[in-house]
Amino acid sequence: MRVTVLAGGTGGTKLAHGFALLEPAVDLAIVANVGDDAEVHGLVVCPDIDALLYTLGGLVDAERGWGIGGDTLSAHAQFERLGEPTWFTLGDADLATHVHRTRRLRHGDRLTEVVGGMADALGIHARVLPATDDRHRTIVETDEGALAFQDYFVRRRQEPEVRRVRFDGNARPSAEALDAISAADLVVIGPSNPIVSIGPILELPDVRAAVQAARARAVAVSPIIGGKALKGPADRMLTGLGLESTALGVARLYAGLVDRFVIDEADAALAPAIEGELGMAVEVLPTVMRSDDDRRRLAGALVELA
Amino acid sequence: MRVTVLAGGTGGTKLAHGFALLEPAVDLAIVANVGDDAEVHGLVVCPDIDALLYTLGGLVDAERGWGIGGDTLSAHAQFERLGEPTWFTLGDADLATHVHRTRRLRHGDRLTEVVGGMADALGIHARVLPATDDRHRTIVETDEGALAFQDYFVRRRQEPEVRRVRFDGNARPSAEALDAISAADLVVIGPSNPIVSIGPILELPDVRAAVQAARARAVAVSPIIGGKALKGPADRMLTGLGLESTALGVARLYAGLVDRFVIDEADAALAPAIEGELGMAVEVLPTVMRSDDDRRRLAGALVELA
Repeated sequence: MRVTVLAGGTGGTKLAHGFALLEPAVDLAIVANVGDDAEVHGLVVCPDIDALLYTLGGLVDAERGWGIGGDTLSAHAQFERLGEPTWFTLGDADLATHVHRTRRLRHGDRLTEVVGGMADALGIHARVLPATDDRHRTIVETDEGALAFQDYFVRRRQEPEVRRVRFDGNARPSAEALDAISAADLVVIGPSNPIVSIGPILELPDVRAAVQAARARAVAVSPIIGGKALKGPADRMLTGLGLESTALGVARLYAGLVDRFVIDEADAALAPAIEGELGMAVEVLPTVMRSDDDRRRLAGALVELA
Repeated sequence: MRVTVLAGGTGGTKLAHGFALLEPAVDLAIVANVGDDAEVHGLVVCPDIDALLYTLGGLVDAERGWGIGGDTLSAHAQFERLGEPTWFTLGDADLATHVHRTRRLRHGDRLTEVVGGMADALGIHARVLPATDDRHRTIVETDEGALAFQDYFVRRRQEPEVRRVRFDGNARPSAEALDAISAADLVVIGPSNPIVSIGPILELPDVRAAVQAARARAVAVSPIIGGKALKGPADRMLTGLGLESTALGVARLYAGLVDRFVIDEADAALAPAIEGELGMAVEVLPTVMRSDDDRRRLAGALVELA
């Protein structure tokens, strides 16, 4: 079964990993958010793609869900000595990833090719596909003004109130990403922040239409459980944008895009409202992924549904 | 006293450090070799400049005489995982230096400015001056063909026999480097490899003439003691080029350029030959620098001579 997961952030990454654990029964492609990419020390940093590569490649710092386990901070100390801004902390092994990617991009390779090469090198079978090869940066308009995403997320610790999210650049989705959505037997919108992880993917021209065309084969998983995001600012962000910070609030964002919506057992009571208001088929599943087994089970349940 | 040291490699770096230990009585400038600079992982690496910065900044791995003490190798391991060539091993903190420099160079800053900023950040008072801001790479023609310097030096471990050394690029010396030579009360050609550490500096247009113009105030220190280089391939390189691997052989390379030549106590017997054949004033000093005290003493003795 060909499964394509739209992912960004820790929740989407964990679920994508769950599908990877079902290989080879599942033929997995992941369309990854690049909206939170940034230039750090002159290097191109792709946090969501790297979290996917490190997780699927078995390198990830499991506790944090990003970065490389056991990584050191010698370069960070040297950057500090040299007076470079260091609010965006990079581990040493992680730094090598950015150096490698930046070298290949400067050489003229597409991000899709670079990430494909890295996935191969790390023994990853799934196709990890940047949603676009173009510049497509999330800009967060806040009560403190417009901030580049990492400026908002890391430097300002997600404290400013978000008024609006927009995207810098005039990006087109990659052919590989569009094809992966169109050709899939199952399209999964992962339990990622709908505004800044999934939103940047869906905002690319033709992507929303491609998902819509696959809506009968598509499912979204709520990242909000009991009104809260498990990690990150999705709940506060929804509220700040005047939306409801519940599974229903997320479902409204995906109405007309997917026919099926998965909510956590803790939110079972919301199923009738979502079905009644939005006409989506709601499935209630345990969606909290604490272990690899949890990931595999949730992915397996989604395969069963399809 | 304004002292300008031409340096590259470990010997020249140690002597430059000796002069730095005499500050503020000495006002030190160092004209540094850039012929062994290389691109590694797409980053600009300047081994001689960095050995100077790390030594004068108190960061150096004292045992090796280059790199940063206590540095880790996490990035190196990641480069290996990603399939990057890793014969040129970079420590993690050292990698940050190259990332920083490359970012500033890509931004359009001159190498002289970048290195000056790094020296400031590391609390170094001496002016560390790249001999040139232009591309000026040493090419070693060997019995295995023409090799980029680090290809010869690191990857091929200085094993191929050197037939000839030439320089890639059409470099001009920096104004700062030329000025430092012209304005000095004492110009010192450090005990560095005359072919690949000092040679690339002297081969830049106008540099040889500037040293010659200061010849009465200039002194060279032999890097060859008892027919051997303390470190590196200078002895084999001299022999391979048909030159004599002795202090006399080195003195011949600097004849007409400096009026005074310093040899080690172990070579005292060569003094009459050097004076007789070349007309240089020879000074016999302990030139082996095992400790900071040795460095300071040798630098102090050279100041005394001048």
